[in-house]
Amino acid sequence: MQFISPTTLKELADFLSADFDGNPDHVISGINEIHMVQPGDITFVDHPKYYKKALGSEADTIIINSKVEKPEGKALIFSDDPFTDYVKIVKRYRPFVPANKMISSEACIGEGTIIQPGVFIGNNVIIGKNCLIHANVTIYDHSIIGDNVIIHSNTVIGADAFYFQRKPSGYSKMESCGRVIIEDNVEIGACCTIDKGVSGDTVVGNGTKLDNHIQIGHDTVIGKNCLFASAVVVAGVTKIEDDVVLWGQVAVQKDIIIKKGAIVLATSAVDKTLEGNRVYFGVPAIEARRKWRELAALRQLPELIQQL
Amino acid sequence: MQFISPTTLKELADFLSADFDGNPDHVISGINEIHMVQPGDITFVDHPKYYKKALGSEADTIIINSKVEKPEGKALIFSDDPFTDYVKIVKRYRPFVPANKMISSEACIGEGTIIQPGVFIGNNVIIGKNCLIHANVTIYDHSIIGDNVIIHSNTVIGADAFYFQRKPSGYSKMESCGRVIIEDNVEIGACCTIDKGVSGDTVVGNGTKLDNHIQIGHDTVIGKNCLFASAVVVAGVTKIEDDVVLWGQVAVQKDIIIKKGAIVLATSAVDKTLEGNRVYFGVPAIEARRKWRELAALRQLPELIQQL
Amino acid sequence: MQFISPTTLKELADFLSADFDGNPDHVISGINEIHMVQPGDITFVDHPKYYKKALGSEADTIIINSKVEKPEGKALIFSDDPFTDYVKIVKRYRPFVPANKMISSEACIGEGTIIQPGVFIGNNVIIGKNCLIHANVTIYDHSIIGDNVIIHSNTVIGADAFYFQRKPSGYSKMESCGRVIIEDNVEIGACCTIDKGVSGDTVVGNGTKLDNHIQIGHDTVIGKNCLFASAVVVAGVTKIEDDVVLWGQVAVQKDIIIKKGAIVLATSAVDKTLEGNRVYFGVPAIEARRKWRELAALRQLPELIQQL
Repeated sequence: MQFISPTTLKELADFLSADFDGNPDHVISGINEIHMVQPGDITFVDHPKYYKKALGSEADTIIINSKVEKPEGKALIFSDDPFTDYVKIVKRYRPFVPANKMISSEACIGEGTIIQPGVFIGNNVIIGKNCLIHANVTIYDHSIIGDNVIIHSNTVIGADAFYFQRKPSGYSKMESCGRVIIEDNVEIGACCTIDKGVSGDTVVGNGTKLDNHIQIGHDTVIGKNCLFASAVVVAGVTKIEDDVVLWGQVAVQKDIIIKKGAIVLATSAVDKTLEGNRVYFGVPAIEARRKWRELAALRQLPELIQQL
Repeated sequence: MQFISPTTLKELADFLSADFDGNPDHVISGINEIHMVQPGDITFVDHPKYYKKALGSEADTIIINSKVEKPEGKALIFSDDPFTDYVKIVKRYRPFVPANKMISSEACIGEGTIIQPGVFIGNNVIIGKNCLIHANVTIYDHSIIGDNVIIHSNTVIGADAFYFQRKPSGYSKMESCGRVIIEDNVEIGACCTIDKGVSGDTVVGNGTKLDNHIQIGHDTVIGKNCLFASAVVVAGVTKIEDDVVLWGQVAVQKDIIIKKGAIVLATSAVDKTLEGNRVYFGVPAIEARRKWRELAALRQLPELIQQL
Repeated sequence: MQFISPTTLKELADFLSADFDGNPDHVISGINEIHMVQPGDITFVDHPKYYKKALGSEADTIIINSKVEKPEGKALIFSDDPFTDYVKIVKRYRPFVPANKMISSEACIGEGTIIQPGVFIGNNVIIGKNCLIHANVTIYDHSIIGDNVIIHSNTVIGADAFYFQRKPSGYSKMESCGRVIIEDNVEIGACCTIDKGVSGDTVVGNGTKLDNHIQIGHDTVIGKNCLFASAVVVAGVTKIEDDVVLWGQVAVQKDIIIKKGAIVLATSAVDKTLEGNRVYFGVPAIEARRKWRELAALRQLPELIQQL
């Protein structure tokens, strides 16, 4: 979750000009999307399908578009458009602050770290010790980078989550207030993009190495000592455990898990959770041996059809 | 078309040291490639297969490599190498003007627009109101950007069309003089590239949202409220109508149409015009249901072949 | 190979605190990976499988993790971890030198070349005549660029090879000391990455044209007058001969050859050496006609299975 200065239910409801149900002095101390909520958080829900999940979650303040019964110990804010009201809160507590120089005076950079020319470092960025940030890299506000990290040129850390809600008039943008966390000993190639979390964190684990042109979506968590070859694309909210190897141009679907030690061969597309310590191939990716058998069979198919 | 200051047939023919057929005072007011020509334009044709199309087009001045009969009301310029002579004209009327600072004094930027550090904005660029251009974005000369547009870091707007003519000695470059037009309420992710038109415009329509690592080729026109996930690659001269959704890593061929409301699933390759309001999948992309049946059948094939 | 100031066997062994076998005054004048070694070079070998290759190679100094018999005329340095000791030598003789301005005073730029704003040019870079380097391009140290070269915005030339050795504790980085060489008349699109060689050179041949979002891995050598459409990904140590055409999103495996005049259709994946002057398609790529027959057969398969 992203902390905010503690605010009462009444203050927030007044800010949104909304009705509420709960103790007016009930305190909200964090903003969070439903997938990541913790006690103290405010979240939103706008579809009856997810009411039960939201009302039963750890979040103790929920913006909701129905006058449901308030669960014990929670607070509700009633809204015709919870998505838009949630975004209003994010914008109030995490406003975008324009930069006027390449390296923000609000950034904190560790000893021994080399920042090459043309690098942009936003507000509240923390970079550890003995890193090497190559020319023309961009690091958005609130990103956190560990020690001994190398980032190659023209890579972008912490751009907004790609998350929109379709309304009749067009797409409405979810303002993301999460962060990117790059742990120690990570190397990131050139022209990569690692998006910030919507309200949580996108994480690249200790010792993981990324080649060039890699995309990591919002709220994706990558384990330790993974190896991704160039042009790998990982969607949002996915978990990649330790020691996973993804070869070139592999695409990974959102909201799945690739378990420890799995290897996915080049140009495969992963559309569901994969067990660890096996080799996968294909679109969609299945065990490589099985896919090779299919491809061998396909090679025989034209002649087979002619015979039949 | 790209307007030029009106020039007579005789002046242009003299500039090219070429013979001509037509009224020496006939006026040329625009440069255009054959696909987009309008009255007043000069264009070129160098293959007998396209003579009829060029001579019958709206262009009223044609550079041609054969002493054909002049159609009524047109003017002809004769050239051994119409491609090269056309490029000479583009270079004369749209010369590249080197920049000496990050934001050209010839650029026009609307009220409320935030330009982050490290952004390059070329000559004659127009940017509307309340835009947010993130650090290290590059916007080439003559690009036009509407209101409320967000462009994420290290994206490149308006690089040259990828258009070469093979000659015995190697590739000869078509100089592009077109533009990129980004309409209102568009969001473009990080590390994207949107190339300028050869002589017309590459357009991204109102409310369309592009994720990271997206490539849009020259003269491609994208409608309103489209959604492209990361690493989508669209070739040149293609039309994508409103409300189209392209999921991650989809590749789209040049010179086709994807009609209103079509959805193309991740990693598909679109090689022909697609009807609207349907879901497609595969390489090449066909209706998704059909492709899934094929994949299910393929899974059975190894056993089937063993039985036969 | 990358030249170093001549150093004796004894000096290097002392630097590594290692035992050696050979004339203490034996001279080392170059650093090289086993694939590219020449007389005068030092290289390393750490797996018995490759001992014979290394000891029989042109390299006359070998760092090795076994007390093998010294071949005539060679010198050996004994090390428990030849990889790490080799990297120590690279770091000593080719240390990374941080830059303090966008264009290094150690760079050499030819007459008539235009460098747009925001371009980073590292130490010891050589750029020829009449080039156009667009805004926000990054060119790492030691890159060499010929005449009449165009490089579009936000492209990165010369980032490190993606080359790691897995150790129990995680990945250990090979420090690359090679170069990128871009020959005359090359055009490179926006957001491309061309990595430097590990100890040799990554080469893009005369007249070759690359579209946007292209990745060229370390030590890959591309011939003359090739044409690569956008999002092509070529792994390391691969050879692409003259006049090869790779269409959009093609992926090419490491350590193979694509021979003169071959054409690979969009979204294919090349996993083995391809003969020249033919057209290929598919994942993995085979002759296009054959792949089309397979796809036609696959379309009939669901009905065929129903009948059987």
